Amino acid sequence: MSLPDEFHDLAQRVNNWGRWGADDEIGTLNLITDEVVREAAATVRAGLRVPLALPLQQDGVQSGLVPGRINPLHTMVQINQELFGPGTVATSDDSAVLSLQTATHWDALTHASHSGRIYNGRPADTITAHEGARFSGIGTMPPVVSRGVLLDVARAHGVDRLPGGHAVTPEDLEAAEELAGVRVRAGDVVLVRTGQVRVYLAGDKNGYGYPSPGLSIRTPEWFRARDVAAVANDTLTFEIFPPEIEDLWLGVHALDLVEMGMPQGQNWNLEALSTACADRARYAFLLSAMPEPFTGATGTPVAPVAVL
Amino acid sequence: MSLPDEFHDLAQRVNNWGRWGADDEIGTLNLITDEVVREAAATVRAGLRVPLALPLQQDGVQSGLVPGRINPLHTMVQINQELFGPGTVATSDDSAVLSLQTATHWDALTHASHSGRIYNGRPADTITAHEGARFSGIGTMPPVVSRGVLLDVARAHGVDRLPGGHAVTPEDLEAAEELAGVRVRAGDVVLVRTGQVRVYLAGDKNGYGYPSPGLSIRTPEWFRARDVAAVANDTLTFEIFPPEIEDLWLGVHALDLVEMGMPQGQNWNLEALSTACADRARYAFLLSAMPEPFTGATGTPVAPVAVL
Amino acid sequence: MSLPDEFHDLAQRVNNWGRWGADDEIGTLNLITDEVVREAAATVRAGLRVPLALPLQQDGVQSGLVPGRINPLHTMVQINQELFGPGTVATSDDSAVLSLQTATHWDALTHASHSGRIYNGRPADTITAHEGARFSGIGTMPPVVSRGVLLDVARAHGVDRLPGGHAVTPEDLEAAEELAGVRVRAGDVVLVRTGQVRVYLAGDKNGYGYPSPGLSIRTPEWFRARDVAAVANDTLTFEIFPPEIEDLWLGVHALDLVEMGMPQGQNWNLEALSTACADRARYAFLLSAMPEPFTGATGTPVAPVAVL
Amino acid sequence: MSLPDEFHDLAQRVNNWGRWGADDEIGTLNLITDEVVREAAATVRAGLRVPLALPLQQDGVQSGLVPGRINPLHTMVQINQELFGPGTVATSDDSAVLSLQTATHWDALTHASHSGRIYNGRPADTITAHEGARFSGIGTMPPVVSRGVLLDVARAHGVDRLPGGHAVTPEDLEAAEELAGVRVRAGDVVLVRTGQVRVYLAGDKNGYGYPSPGLSIRTPEWFRARDVAAVANDTLTFEIFPPEIEDLWLGVHALDLVEMGMPQGQNWNLEALSTACADRARYAFLLSAMPEPFTGATGTPVAPVAVL
Repeated sequence: MSLPDEFHDLAQRVNNWGRWGADDEIGTLNLITDEVVREAAATVRAGLRVPLALPLQQDGVQSGLVPGRINPLHTMVQINQELFGPGTVATSDDSAVLSLQTATHWDALTHASHSGRIYNGRPADTITAHEGARFSGIGTMPPVVSRGVLLDVARAHGVDRLPGGHAVTPEDLEAAEELAGVRVRAGDVVLVRTGQVRVYLAGDKNGYGYPSPGLSIRTPEWFRARDVAAVANDTLTFEIFPPEIEDLWLGVHALDLVEMGMPQGQNWNLEALSTACADRARYAFLLSAMPEPFTGATGTPVAPVAVL
Repeated sequence: MSLPDEFHDLAQRVNNWGRWGADDEIGTLNLITDEVVREAAATVRAGLRVPLALPLQQDGVQSGLVPGRINPLHTMVQINQELFGPGTVATSDDSAVLSLQTATHWDALTHASHSGRIYNGRPADTITAHEGARFSGIGTMPPVVSRGVLLDVARAHGVDRLPGGHAVTPEDLEAAEELAGVRVRAGDVVLVRTGQVRVYLAGDKNGYGYPSPGLSIRTPEWFRARDVAAVANDTLTFEIFPPEIEDLWLGVHALDLVEMGMPQGQNWNLEALSTACADRARYAFLLSAMPEPFTGATGTPVAPVAVL
Repeated sequence: MSLPDEFHDLAQRVNNWGRWGADDEIGTLNLITDEVVREAAATVRAGLRVPLALPLQQDGVQSGLVPGRINPLHTMVQINQELFGPGTVATSDDSAVLSLQTATHWDALTHASHSGRIYNGRPADTITAHEGARFSGIGTMPPVVSRGVLLDVARAHGVDRLPGGHAVTPEDLEAAEELAGVRVRAGDVVLVRTGQVRVYLAGDKNGYGYPSPGLSIRTPEWFRARDVAAVANDTLTFEIFPPEIEDLWLGVHALDLVEMGMPQGQNWNLEALSTACADRARYAFLLSAMPEPFTGATGTPVAPVAVL
Repeated sequence: MSLPDEFHDLAQRVNNWGRWGADDEIGTLNLITDEVVREAAATVRAGLRVPLALPLQQDGVQSGLVPGRINPLHTMVQINQELFGPGTVATSDDSAVLSLQTATHWDALTHASHSGRIYNGRPADTITAHEGARFSGIGTMPPVVSRGVLLDVARAHGVDRLPGGHAVTPEDLEAAEELAGVRVRAGDVVLVRTGQVRVYLAGDKNGYGYPSPGLSIRTPEWFRARDVAAVANDTLTFEIFPPEIEDLWLGVHALDLVEMGMPQGQNWNLEALSTACADRARYAFLLSAMPEPFTGATGTPVAPVAVL
């Protein structure tokens, strides 16, 4: 099997290899300049903070659909342990086992590869069991603090949640932009709301993962045209699943991560943000979504916060 | 053994139990109001982002000093796996085993207890192996976005690093405040720099942990007077270790976490921030330091970022 | 809620506290004497080895029924890593996250407690997050090598598998003994086959766990009368689940582990052994079922082998 | 760098590829026949059971010498949890994070590769992050129950422990055989005692690992001549470390595992066995050393037991 011609056409149009030099490891995060950050800080009006992460717990979004990806297992290592003798101050300590892509997360650019290549044309086999990702791992990501823009596609469609077969198109994004009254520009982090996370929040893990609305194979070109820094949404798979084009699985991943060098976020809970933005009729905000700096990792949990 | 009278006197002076109601679980984080956040956003001038987390890796700060606390173990679960057949888009996935207090972290209020009590007077045995912390766990923490203030005690002393036996006193904090040209106020997150993390960065894990400069037993009262929201520093133990008062181990933990209900941060790398602040002669900034929402946990890794 | 009178009557009849001294931690494993082992070795006729463990893998028996108990997650830490330079000998290393009671396992005596007590009358709170089980943990178990006897209850009933609601009674055990042509005696390790593991082997994890045939609350007295050293079977819950007596959950666990001090084994795959024994009309054999010596643990994976 | 000619000469002399067919995955474990097992059972005289595993605990043999290999982390998931309500029977559950080669273990044949090949000439890249070892993983190992023979080289030399620079030679093995009064034969599992584990037992982890006595590059040929089924010893590295031949690191691993297809065991505690054998002047016994069946793994903890 090989990737269809349509994929290669799109790849060519969105490709950013070499754009920031042959040594670049961070792709579109280069677009978050000091000026972008200054303007992002200036969007803060109310001082309201809206957290966007799902809880990290055994009862998480993983249902067995993705092989080897498990829900977080949290265990206590010490409970009220009086380490220095009876009657002294006690401490509790804990540990966790964590699939790095388990819940609300960023994909590193190295989370996907195709045709033996990762972002910027490096060989895919620079990812090893010993080192993880030698290039473009999570540990190399700069701080992700920028202007966030919510593109509330579900709300623009007048629904709580897009149906399972809905591929979010550039036209959908522009309708949501119009609803938002804000134009997406270079360096923005775009949050695309489908409402799909409501299925998980209502207790149906299997229904959450599949079938799922998600981004269309046509969206990477739109993100490339606007030069956004990163995109996240509220689904397990990010892109529509199963895919629009037969046998083109994970095509959006390949275009965003490998070709464009743009990080993706998944399983972000955008429900409270949707309400907060609608209430204020303001869809741009300061967003902080810091990767946990796991050396060599291809993904990271993230606890994003929007400050309105 | 029992806690000395001196401890109980201090406890009474800093105690916040009931201050935000009998049901409160978040303590001094109540002090981060919308207004505080608006003013924090307004401190951003340059748009510079300074990350404050140490890498999460096997070669981390844990040396075996703290029982059961291990350095992060990162492993690849899939490497360039063509899940949908040969020639298709490939993905890489990873997992990690993580002591939640292993590297740059927040202590939940429940990380410490004494005399059978946690913050707000609840029984310590509400922390169990099954649930973790039923109250005041990491999962209940609100977003930590506020004004950050660097109190660069090492720089105020004209040294790269305070010596191992140096207990940082309220007078030290005020000298650093003077250097900073900013007055700490309600809702601030205070970052206290000792320079001790340089020992770890230079490759000496054992020397990093012990002996270590750190906060004096007299500082909680100062933080209480200023009503700060949280305090973090660049040491393994937060407080001076071994302690100033014989047999009063972890007294600062007990005062801050249990009595005052104020979260503590440890192993924060404040070196780059120290330079950035000194270069600009500005020591106040927007700080985002979001807890990863592990349900029931008593600690969390954090990837803080200062935006100047 | 308190345990019913019927439970306390049974408890009194099977109780072994103090039988091997106040300091004893190993209960009925004391019954495996050198002589028992010599006779066990003498049962070997064919030299045939039948392994009894299920594979340790993500696709294991855990379905979410037992809170916090997960299937094994195996990950590669190194793959063909040439640690000493290109062209040198390469090694591969792996790690696993393992619920100790996840698949084929022994329960330590401390796996259960009731009324605040563990085996031999010790307080249950000697099990802590810091140390695990201070007494009667897996690390204190002596080698489990003895005569094994298969009581093939399913075969004695002429079925492949007992139905979900079948509580295996002392009468069932005696019928199986008759089929086996061997009398269970002191120090034996008894393997009770229900055939239930066939449900898991056929791919139905949920059906495997619940409802499940299993040992009746009346069996501990029979095991006590015969002075067996340990009992294992081929179910997730060991005892019939849901239980025979309303509101007496895990009563067999409490009688066997706490009162009698007799280890239990679960999720043993007895299918091949059933065939091997029937083919030879021999149901007694040498059994080796060594606990992995996790210090302080309340359970352990085990890879038992019957040698016929 | 490439492997020296001397290595290739030895490899040719010990190679077993194809000996048990092109499809074989288990190598010399084929030599454990029913007859060997019958004779092994017949060696049991006293009924004495000697366990050979080190405890699995945080304070284990790993010192950081081997990258990514950590000591076991044991944590409680439930402690005396009354799952069915207050006053009901309570249970305790635990989990562990385990490097599969961490303490007393078997290496699978796939633990080593060289020149792109694993045992029986299969490509080394059949080991992947997704599946682990597709061939010759731990999950394919048959039961390891056979005659064990202790070759007590330290005792034959009249010392408690061989010095760090001592490479155990075929002549050493034959001297130990003479002391034992038993001739090693096909299908035996040979345990070679150097006494090195005493360094760890005395509390010196660093000294245990390096420098270490161990098997000489000349021993594989001797094991091949005797057609032993497997070999284990009481060191971290199995072979002498650093190696006898400059730049030939892990040469014994490559000869035993890759060329001969013979499993190796490391970190076996042979101290009690040494005494037991010397006391009885009997060095042959029944050995059970069952791998835990981790699917696709390249190593496994093992809790071996010698029955004398």
